[in-house]
Amino acid sequence: MNDFPRFNSDYMEGAHPRILARIAAENLKKHPGYGEDDICAAAKQKIRTACACPNARVEFLVGGTQTNSTVLDALLRSWQGVVAAASGHINCYECGTIEARGHKVIAVPGQNGKITPATLSDYLAGFWADEDHDHMVEPGAVYISHPTEIGTLYTKSELSSLHEICRQYRIPLYVDGARLGYGLMADGTDVTLTDLAKLADVFYIGGTKVGALIGEAVVFPNPEIIDHFVTIKKQHGGLLAKGWLLGVQFDELFTDELYFKISRSAIEKAMRLRELFTAKGYKVAYPSPTNQQFFLLDNETKRRLAEKVDFAFWENADADHTVVRFCTSWATTDEQIEELEALL
Amino acid sequence: MNDFPRFNSDYMEGAHPRILARIAAENLKKHPGYGEDDICAAAKQKIRTACACPNARVEFLVGGTQTNSTVLDALLRSWQGVVAAASGHINCYECGTIEARGHKVIAVPGQNGKITPATLSDYLAGFWADEDHDHMVEPGAVYISHPTEIGTLYTKSELSSLHEICRQYRIPLYVDGARLGYGLMADGTDVTLTDLAKLADVFYIGGTKVGALIGEAVVFPNPEIIDHFVTIKKQHGGLLAKGWLLGVQFDELFTDELYFKISRSAIEKAMRLRELFTAKGYKVAYPSPTNQQFFLLDNETKRRLAEKVDFAFWENADADHTVVRFCTSWATTDEQIEELEALL
Amino acid sequence: MNDFPRFNSDYMEGAHPRILARIAAENLKKHPGYGEDDICAAAKQKIRTACACPNARVEFLVGGTQTNSTVLDALLRSWQGVVAAASGHINCYECGTIEARGHKVIAVPGQNGKITPATLSDYLAGFWADEDHDHMVEPGAVYISHPTEIGTLYTKSELSSLHEICRQYRIPLYVDGARLGYGLMADGTDVTLTDLAKLADVFYIGGTKVGALIGEAVVFPNPEIIDHFVTIKKQHGGLLAKGWLLGVQFDELFTDELYFKISRSAIEKAMRLRELFTAKGYKVAYPSPTNQQFFLLDNETKRRLAEKVDFAFWENADADHTVVRFCTSWATTDEQIEELEALL
Amino acid sequence: MNDFPRFNSDYMEGAHPRILARIAAENLKKHPGYGEDDICAAAKQKIRTACACPNARVEFLVGGTQTNSTVLDALLRSWQGVVAAASGHINCYECGTIEARGHKVIAVPGQNGKITPATLSDYLAGFWADEDHDHMVEPGAVYISHPTEIGTLYTKSELSSLHEICRQYRIPLYVDGARLGYGLMADGTDVTLTDLAKLADVFYIGGTKVGALIGEAVVFPNPEIIDHFVTIKKQHGGLLAKGWLLGVQFDELFTDELYFKISRSAIEKAMRLRELFTAKGYKVAYPSPTNQQFFLLDNETKRRLAEKVDFAFWENADADHTVVRFCTSWATTDEQIEELEALL
Repeated sequence: MNDFPRFNSDYMEGAHPRILARIAAENLKKHPGYGEDDICAAAKQKIRTACACPNARVEFLVGGTQTNSTVLDALLRSWQGVVAAASGHINCYECGTIEARGHKVIAVPGQNGKITPATLSDYLAGFWADEDHDHMVEPGAVYISHPTEIGTLYTKSELSSLHEICRQYRIPLYVDGARLGYGLMADGTDVTLTDLAKLADVFYIGGTKVGALIGEAVVFPNPEIIDHFVTIKKQHGGLLAKGWLLGVQFDELFTDELYFKISRSAIEKAMRLRELFTAKGYKVAYPSPTNQQFFLLDNETKRRLAEKVDFAFWENADADHTVVRFCTSWATTDEQIEELEALL
Repeated sequence: MNDFPRFNSDYMEGAHPRILARIAAENLKKHPGYGEDDICAAAKQKIRTACACPNARVEFLVGGTQTNSTVLDALLRSWQGVVAAASGHINCYECGTIEARGHKVIAVPGQNGKITPATLSDYLAGFWADEDHDHMVEPGAVYISHPTEIGTLYTKSELSSLHEICRQYRIPLYVDGARLGYGLMADGTDVTLTDLAKLADVFYIGGTKVGALIGEAVVFPNPEIIDHFVTIKKQHGGLLAKGWLLGVQFDELFTDELYFKISRSAIEKAMRLRELFTAKGYKVAYPSPTNQQFFLLDNETKRRLAEKVDFAFWENADADHTVVRFCTSWATTDEQIEELEALL
Repeated sequence: MNDFPRFNSDYMEGAHPRILARIAAENLKKHPGYGEDDICAAAKQKIRTACACPNARVEFLVGGTQTNSTVLDALLRSWQGVVAAASGHINCYECGTIEARGHKVIAVPGQNGKITPATLSDYLAGFWADEDHDHMVEPGAVYISHPTEIGTLYTKSELSSLHEICRQYRIPLYVDGARLGYGLMADGTDVTLTDLAKLADVFYIGGTKVGALIGEAVVFPNPEIIDHFVTIKKQHGGLLAKGWLLGVQFDELFTDELYFKISRSAIEKAMRLRELFTAKGYKVAYPSPTNQQFFLLDNETKRRLAEKVDFAFWENADADHTVVRFCTSWATTDEQIEELEALL
Repeated sequence: MNDFPRFNSDYMEGAHPRILARIAAENLKKHPGYGEDDICAAAKQKIRTACACPNARVEFLVGGTQTNSTVLDALLRSWQGVVAAASGHINCYECGTIEARGHKVIAVPGQNGKITPATLSDYLAGFWADEDHDHMVEPGAVYISHPTEIGTLYTKSELSSLHEICRQYRIPLYVDGARLGYGLMADGTDVTLTDLAKLADVFYIGGTKVGALIGEAVVFPNPEIIDHFVTIKKQHGGLLAKGWLLGVQFDELFTDELYFKISRSAIEKAMRLRELFTAKGYKVAYPSPTNQQFFLLDNETKRRLAEKVDFAFWENADADHTVVRFCTSWATTDEQIEELEALL
């Protein structure tokens, strides 16, 4: 491994030091198994409070793929699939885990990584108007991510429209929040955590990429939409014997607004990073206000940059240009940004 | 049920009379179960001969959905999916049966209902070039249909190219032949059954829509590509206790070229039908040389026509126009065509 | 194939001649697809009447494995399994099709092929008393067959007790009736079709083994216990384009009590067959009042018999003895029984 | 939560302090994702060395259910199931996760929690002798656990026999080692880690219950028996973005024989615990030489004990007696044992 500055992803470090300290403090105590401990209970309560959603059910899982797979398996019946943007994570990078449990990902065209209300509405109206719909996969849920795969954000108005459409067709709206903190703390967004708890039927608060060692917190504002979630979670390998290990991390993240503060830090670093690039004349590929920044580089520039700093290949734009991704995270320091500046 | 002339589909009648007569002749004999009878053996041999493929394995199944589901389940490993045109039957009208057994349908853009060699090649090259392909669904087979969903046909050159690409990536090419007879006997096609047996790794000879009561014959030119097919077939509900019932139908269809003769009859009726429509100024929607004919009607014309004859709605072209489908079949008579002519 | 008298199974012949005649009469008419035709409607009505169950939903499927797989998939949620006798068909001879769709067959000890009420009650009470039941597969349905795998029959009192237990635990009782006619027409049974419609939540009336070419009729006395059955049926390969083909057979079977008459004929032949064997000193292995008769043979007798007549191996009793099965069916003739008598 | 001494399970504490210290030391470094880091590589190498198995493939997963589900999914084809003792963990307490991915758990009778070579051999011989085996679930792997569900251990001779039988039938032997350390360090065992690597085709070294925060290390002595394991692992939610978190724990556990030392400590505590109980006249329920100790208590004694100390209910022995489980672990201290002694 080289010692280049690394901006490849937002999951390279472990946990925020406060979290490690909490784990150490709890480490040799004896906790009941499977998340039935007091720390999990306290963490869930803090999340309910932060969501202004006192009746919400909160469940902890280990990682993002597992969470998407488990939640969708819990929401969908055997004859149903989930609507997602063609570019959505579950359609592209979940190695078929949704299908492995029997459910089609029904891809609809995305725009800037998002499903527009018009696209969703047209698709659902068309499905139910088709007299052969018994021969087709019924849309049983809608999947979006916030931020999206390319760092873009829904507006409150867009989320409200998607929410309304889902109400009309009586299907749940599920929001993948692997990087939720970075979305909530972005400049210019009008979407808050409490908005999300009103507009989504299920969402998860990503921990793995936002300060936790591992862990995601799924929130069901209305617990009645699911059944037997603990068993389904176990089938998907998400029921940890040491469930307190997940609870303690979210308990800490939702104490003194740590989750939001460290998310904001990543945003500030990302905005500085973008300024560095644009000041040097680099072209922004997608308009991301979040911690993932995408630049369009000619291949020669990309090659030269790759000799000094680590970043992620995103996609080939054309024969001569490439889109690359630079990520900041809760752990990114001013020094790291300055080091990058010196190299550009 | 009205007594309109009916051109809705090609599966409205039962079986060719010769087939019913054969079933009656065999009816009270005692046959070994599960297709291990002499009639199945004879039918398989006739199909091998017709395919010029002496080592082929031939397996009978009941219907098209079951055949697609069973064959793909047999071809794919748990981490694999099947590449299909976005408009392909398995992506649209199989109610998720492929996904229900754990496999993603990887949709690529189609052209005239077909996957072009360039599209396939680009997709496969891109997949393997992606350094994250371990996080994606691996393409484990390619699905096409011949004729396609909209009645179009591959040329021998196109099939050869698809075959070559599949060879290069070591994945099987599977051809859904629900209406195969109508494709093979179309005017202008250069694809024969023996070509298909050379260029496809698996294909099926559709019976349900081409003269049989029920039944499809799957051909594996190289039997080594599958394993435990009988058990997989049983898991999919396709292993009939009275397997001879399927064998006897194909034995008859492949005696005296019955399959080809009745397919040709349907083509001739379809060509006459198309002439009737175009002579009256109707516009052809898709260039189908097979038994399915698609016309673009303004909605008023469609309404008037629907008062006199039964046909299938296909899709809305725009706010004022509709694509409709008229099917002929092996059972279509001259009288039925003349009756239609009188109504147009 | 030798020309021995054949008593191997009850699915060696095709259909009752009246059924073939009906198919021939309907053969060249144009029927709507997928079972939405008038013949299916009429057949369903006749079955409702025979069951004295005017609101029942009736659905036709192709074969027994498919029916078990489809019905259980429709009854069970993803965290549930089905309770069955360890000797039950779905636990032994369905090649894992229940599991292939994600559901455990929860085996409990059987007695004479049956689940006793005490066994069921103890199992269910134990499951719910176990504080770890969230880590276990929840019993979501109970499967029995009538007649059972070894030809035995439940009494009305036993069925009533199972029914009560299932009510108590709010899970459906599903009765596999692959050979139902032979059970209903057996000497000494007190279970009628209308009893079954009161005591089972789902059952099927077997056609394949009782006079039909192919086909099983599933009856849901209370249609509300299932959802989206047509789509699930299609996923399992059971939705025939030519659905009328199944309807027409049951329409005929339930006209003039054909189903019951031919079932009774098989019973009479079976009783004669048993008398022949016992008169010659053969020992009955299981006390079956139905069309399957099981005898315990020493291996030398078995070998000699196998040189003259075809029957089924059932199981090794010990090193020197074998259980064998002789089946009669609706098609068994007096001549065949006499021929057998001459050989014993 | 009361403050009773707790002997409920072996997963109540977090990690050995050396492991927490290592995580803290690595916490703010930037690690490549998905286990492709140097620490994982080093940990795998240490495990290979400890197993004397230089070519082994080692893969880290998060927990036991996930490991069993992932490994068996990787070993089995769609028509195969896994043979296990009826009392085996995957047959009883994995909530159907094996079946959820399509595979039957084929239960055979156990003895003292173990499958005897004779039972396995008889079952496999019987399966392949059955002429209907194409209608049955083919045994595709054998699952045992060491220690078993009730703490018993296989002898080297028993493992060798199971190994030979699996060789003969060409199916892999998979050993669930959730508590492997406690088995390897038990008094009187003749099975070493290197033996296991010779006799099993796959096994896992349990971390969650033996000193790690979370994590299990799967060892494939011959890597060729699996394919696409990374993708399968991701489908099962076991591919952590922060894979180094698992690697670092095993790196520490396999440094200076930490894994073995802490396992031995648990054994010593368990032996003292057993002596305390037997000295007081309590009756041992199962002959476990490992960290789980089972006692047969009359219900009044059980009730009284439960007022002072936490332990696990195991099963009802009869109306008046109960089997209970007391666990020690790597973290059990002398003080805890002494505290228990004072209470008995």
